[in-house]
Parts: sequence; structure tokens; C-alpha cells
Amino acid sequence: MESHALDPSLPGVRQLQDWIRERTPLQLQLIDGTALGGCLYWQDPEFLALKTSPEAPLLLMGRRAVALIRPLG
Amino acid sequence: MESHALDPSLPGVRQLQDWIRERTPLQLQLIDGTALGGCLYWQDPEFLALKTSPEAPLLLMGRRAVALIRPLG
Amino acid sequence: MESHALDPSLPGVRQLQDWIRERTPLQLQLIDGTALGGCLYWQDPEFLALKTSPEAPLLLMGRRAVALIRPLG
Amino acid sequence: MESHALDPSLPGVRQLQDWIRERTPLQLQLIDGTALGGCLYWQDPEFLALKTSPEAPLLLMGRRAVALIRPLG
Amino acid sequence: MESHALDPSLPGVRQLQDWIRERTPLQLQLIDGTALGGCLYWQDPEFLALKTSPEAPLLLMGRRAVALIRPLG
Amino acid sequence: MESHALDPSLPGVRQLQDWIRERTPLQLQLIDGTALGGCLYWQDPEFLALKTSPEAPLLLMGRRAVALIRPLG
Repeated sequence: MESHALDPSLPGVRQLQDWIRERTPLQLQLIDGTALGGCLYWQDPEFLALKTSPEAPLLLMGRRAVALIRPLG
Repeated sequence: MESHALDPSLPGVRQLQDWIRERTPLQLQLIDGTALGGCLYWQDPEFLALKTSPEAPLLLMGRRAVALIRPLG
Repeated sequence: MESHALDPSLPGVRQLQDWIRERTPLQLQLIDGTALGGCLYWQDPEFLALKTSPEAPLLLMGRRAVALIRPLG
Repeated sequence: MESHALDPSLPGVRQLQDWIRERTPLQLQLIDGTALGGCLYWQDPEFLALKTSPEAPLLLMGRRAVALIRPLG
Repeated sequence: MESHALDPSLPGVRQLQDWIRERTPLQLQLIDGTALGGCLYWQDPEFLALKTSPEAPLLLMGRRAVALIRPLG
Repeated sequence: MESHALDPSLPGVRQLQDWIRERTPLQLQLIDGTALGGCLYWQDPEFLALKTSPEAPLLLMGRRAVALIRPLG
């Protein structure tokens, strides 16, 4: 587990925070090629929490497994 | 091995802890694409412990190898 | 998350900074084989931010997932 | 190389230690999908040492490459 | 990003430095199986800089993504 | 780059050192599935140095990319 705190001065952390606050629809691609669409709900140093639809349960995506995040639409 | 202690203030650690306490049926996907269904029994900084059924033995899943965890059903 | 600050004395950080400043068209290859063309807009210790065209939204590429970056043209 | 010492208070380290002491037959799956059956002989922070049969030589498995360990039988 | 300085007492750093100084033609294989031929120009803790031919632009190869480096010829 | 020194008290480091000293023929498998046969010449925290035959040049194998090492024969 990565126990470092998130550093809010980093542009990546801030960009993710913006996408979380605005519930921006995103496509997230993992390093195994899996792609998922949805909105982010929170980030911590180890995971991103995602819902693929508003009524879906939260799912956790390993931050180390993230290859690419891009806004949809 | 990751020797950092788990930080219970992180939402990812707490979410996993909730799933462990409630024995939530989960699908866990590894970065090689392997997917497994089951319930979590404990977490530590290196592994998640999973049973694919209540009478099955515990198996260990490398935390670094986790790509995605999602509740089933 | 990698919380180390970027070290501007490293040639890799400086090379990326040059490509960012000059908006050099690049091909970026991830460790899953995904390749993307575009220009870099910023770097932080965890992500590179890329636009595939000037009017496209920023996308984030996990720095650990980068296998190869090469100038195009 | 991971130079941290193993922390015997972690349940993952203890579970592995149990399997080592009891020579539990295990299936070990690596993140490239390779699966091997055998018993563990020792663990250190970088490797697990495995024999696929009692008279086979020890082989080393990179701890970071472990995706899944499950008891057989 | 790896912010550790390179340690010139390590044989791997020295071997790479020799190949850089002598412009030894090398084959570099990444963990996704991509192979590239060329000469190294510098190393830092995060990247190796490579030219596939003397007039080609520098390209950056993620050090964590390197599986194998072997001299050609 | 891993800048930690090798810890000779670890059984994995010692096992590798034995194989280096005795020039034990080994099969080394990387996490992308590549397999190579040869003898080890040295280890450092980032790389293992291998010759596939006594007259071949040294090649470097990223320690993080190692999935499995097993003696041949």
C-alpha cells in the first residue's frame, strides 16, 4: 500500500479533484487494457473510486494500474 | 514487500474494511486480467485475503496486482 | 501515489519540460502497448498530461505506465 | 530490491509462514499468468522460494510478480 | 518518479555508463515485449535516453519498463 | 532506480550469490513471459547480469521484471 498522503499541490491530484467535484464522465484505461467509463467519487493514494452509473456501487481501481484517464464527450 | 502499516484514515482502506466486515460479495480483477469472485477476510499492506466460497481455503492476492474491485449483485 | 517532487536537475525531467515548452508532437507508448500521439502540457511525479489535439481535453497518463516517448516527424 | 525486513505482525507474512512450516501444497500465479504448483520453503522481502517437488531444486519467484496464491486440494 | 540519485558504485549503473560512453549498439526489450535497437546517450533514475540512429531524435525509455538490455553484434 | 544496497542477510540475495559463484545454469523468466537460459555474473539492486554462453556479452535483466528463476538440469 502507498501510505504517502496525497499532495494537493500536484496538478494531477488537482485535475482528478476537479473531475471528482464536477462528476466529469471519464474513460479510465488500466494497464491490462481494460477500459471503464464512469465518474470519480474520491481518490486516495492507493485507489480511485468510480461509479459506472449514479446508482451503481462504488468500485475501486488500483492507482498503480491506471494507464490513461480521459474525459468523455 | 510493502512494510508500511495500513492507514485507516484512507477511504480505500476503509472501503475494503467495510467489505470485509459485511462479507460483501466482490469481483476482483488482477492486472493480468484474471477475475475472481468471493469475499474478503482481511487486508494487510501486501495482500488481500479472499475466499471464493465460505468453505474454501483463504487465498492471497497481491495488492499491487489488483486492478479493479467491484461489488457483485 | 509518488509524492516525491520532480527534480529539475534530472535530464529526463528537463527533456520532458523542453517537449512541454515547445509543444513537440510526440508518440507515447504505454506498457500495455497502447500508443498515443499528442503534445504534453505538464508533468508531475505521478502523471503526464497530454492533448491529442489542441482542442481536445487534457488526459492523464500514469508515469509508471510509460514505456517509451518519442518525438514525431 | 526491497530491503525492508519482513514484518511478522502482518497476516500475509504469517499466512505464508504457516504454509512454509506445514509445507502446504499451493498454486502460485504470477502476473503474467504463469501458474506453478509446489510448496514454499522460505520467504524474504523480494522472493518466495518454491519447490515444485521435494527433490526439485529451489526456485525463486519475485514477490512483486505474485498475483495469487491458493492452497491446493 | 524515482527521485533517488544514480549510485555510480552499482555495477548496473557503471555497465550502462560504459555502453553510453562507447555508444555500444544495444537491443533494449521492454516488459510489454517491445524491442528497440540503438545507442544510449544518458541515463537518469527514471529514464534511459536512446537514439535508434545517430540522426534520430532522442527518445525516453522508462527505466521501470526495461526487461532486458543486450549488446548487439 | 532502486538505490537501496543489497542486504546479504536475505536468503534471496544469498541464493543468487550462490548461483553466481557456482555459475549454476539457470532459466530466468521475465514478467512478459520471455525466458532466457544462462549463468549469472553479478547482481545489484536494479539488475541481474547474465551471459547466455561464456563467450556472449553480459546482458542486464531488470530485477523488477523477474518473475521466476530456476536452476536447469
